[in-house]
Amino acid sequence: MQRKCLFCFNKTLNYFEFMQESLQNIRTLIASLIDINDEEWAYYSAMFELKKFKKKEIILQVGEVAKSVFFVNRGLLRIYFLDKNQKECTFHFAQELSFATDYESFLRKTPSKYSIQAMEDTEVVIMSHFMVHDGYKGLRYGEKLGRVLAETHFFLFSNKLLELYTQTPLERYEQMNKLFPKILQRVPQHYIASYLNISSVHLSRIINEQPRN
Amino acid sequence: MQRKCLFCFNKTLNYFEFMQESLQNIRTLIASLIDINDEEWAYYSAMFELKKFKKKEIILQVGEVAKSVFFVNRGLLRIYFLDKNQKECTFHFAQELSFATDYESFLRKTPSKYSIQAMEDTEVVIMSHFMVHDGYKGLRYGEKLGRVLAETHFFLFSNKLLELYTQTPLERYEQMNKLFPKILQRVPQHYIASYLNISSVHLSRIINEQPRN
Repeated sequence: MQRKCLFCFNKTLNYFEFMQESLQNIRTLIASLIDINDEEWAYYSAMFELKKFKKKEIILQVGEVAKSVFFVNRGLLRIYFLDKNQKECTFHFAQELSFATDYESFLRKTPSKYSIQAMEDTEVVIMSHFMVHDGYKGLRYGEKLGRVLAETHFFLFSNKLLELYTQTPLERYEQMNKLFPKILQRVPQHYIASYLNISSVHLSRIINEQPRN
Repeated sequence: MQRKCLFCFNKTLNYFEFMQESLQNIRTLIASLIDINDEEWAYYSAMFELKKFKKKEIILQVGEVAKSVFFVNRGLLRIYFLDKNQKECTFHFAQELSFATDYESFLRKTPSKYSIQAMEDTEVVIMSHFMVHDGYKGLRYGEKLGRVLAETHFFLFSNKLLELYTQTPLERYEQMNKLFPKILQRVPQHYIASYLNISSVHLSRIINEQPRN
């Protein structure tokens, strides 16, 4: 089955090759956390769904219940919330080979406090609520996988909170560049400024003061 | 075996009764999350250790590796960190029937970013690193318990972060009173102010503006 790639219009791509690559990426990630055998993988991977989003598309909106976990295979997502003045605050970027959702909304089926937007044309693998809970029970180490992913998610939030209090804007900027290499080339600067919780003017000053290689 | 209670000097208490009450509280909490049978409980509960701390005692210091999870049976703990000016910021209060540790430090064996201090004479049950990891493997639903506790911990951090951005100081104050009833009578006001991320003057104004019942 041949399909036109949504992003690369001058190139015809094999949909199944795309899917295989995505699934292989997820399997590698999962296998780095738990032991998963071929039989389990065959059963589990049949439930994944591939989806593509256009640049700027909103894929989760504050107030909706998050029904999916998105695994980013290609592209970049921005996770943000609205502050008390309804100003967008960028919380996180989900780059290739990482997960994105409002985890609390997804797990508790409560209205999402975050929105998610594609920063580039983005290809994700979708995991449904059923699939995740089926995985907890059905995989031999499913609950362990759930625990490790919850812990990883927790470390992310804990460090984000501490950074805001304990690091200077320059330190947060350096930390961001380590976490998300090339993010400055991929995302408009006002989103970066809102991620760092500083003004765009302050961000420009930091960027201009960096030594050029 | 009769022991003098560390906190109530005019009363002789049975150490084992104390321990039994603490263990029953933990068992009730665990049983609300997973199915645990008598055999599992007998094996697991034998590893708990009871410890008492005096008011104001520091029980975990920034920079140490957190070797234990504390389950508060009686009393109150304050979890705090130091901001970039070395000022103490209160992050959380662990009241009766809740857990406290630097979870990341405990799980990853890295230096703790938080300190923990007893706000009152406090009685805790201690779980060691070995015990927690043994529980993940040894209990039929140990990994599920680990997952649910990691998720709960994550919700706490996620909401704390969002509150700082999305709620007014008054809203944060009301939220705190729901989470920690009577906290105002138990903790000096400057710790409350630092929990709410406002000045002590601002906190006094909020308290004085509350309707008196």
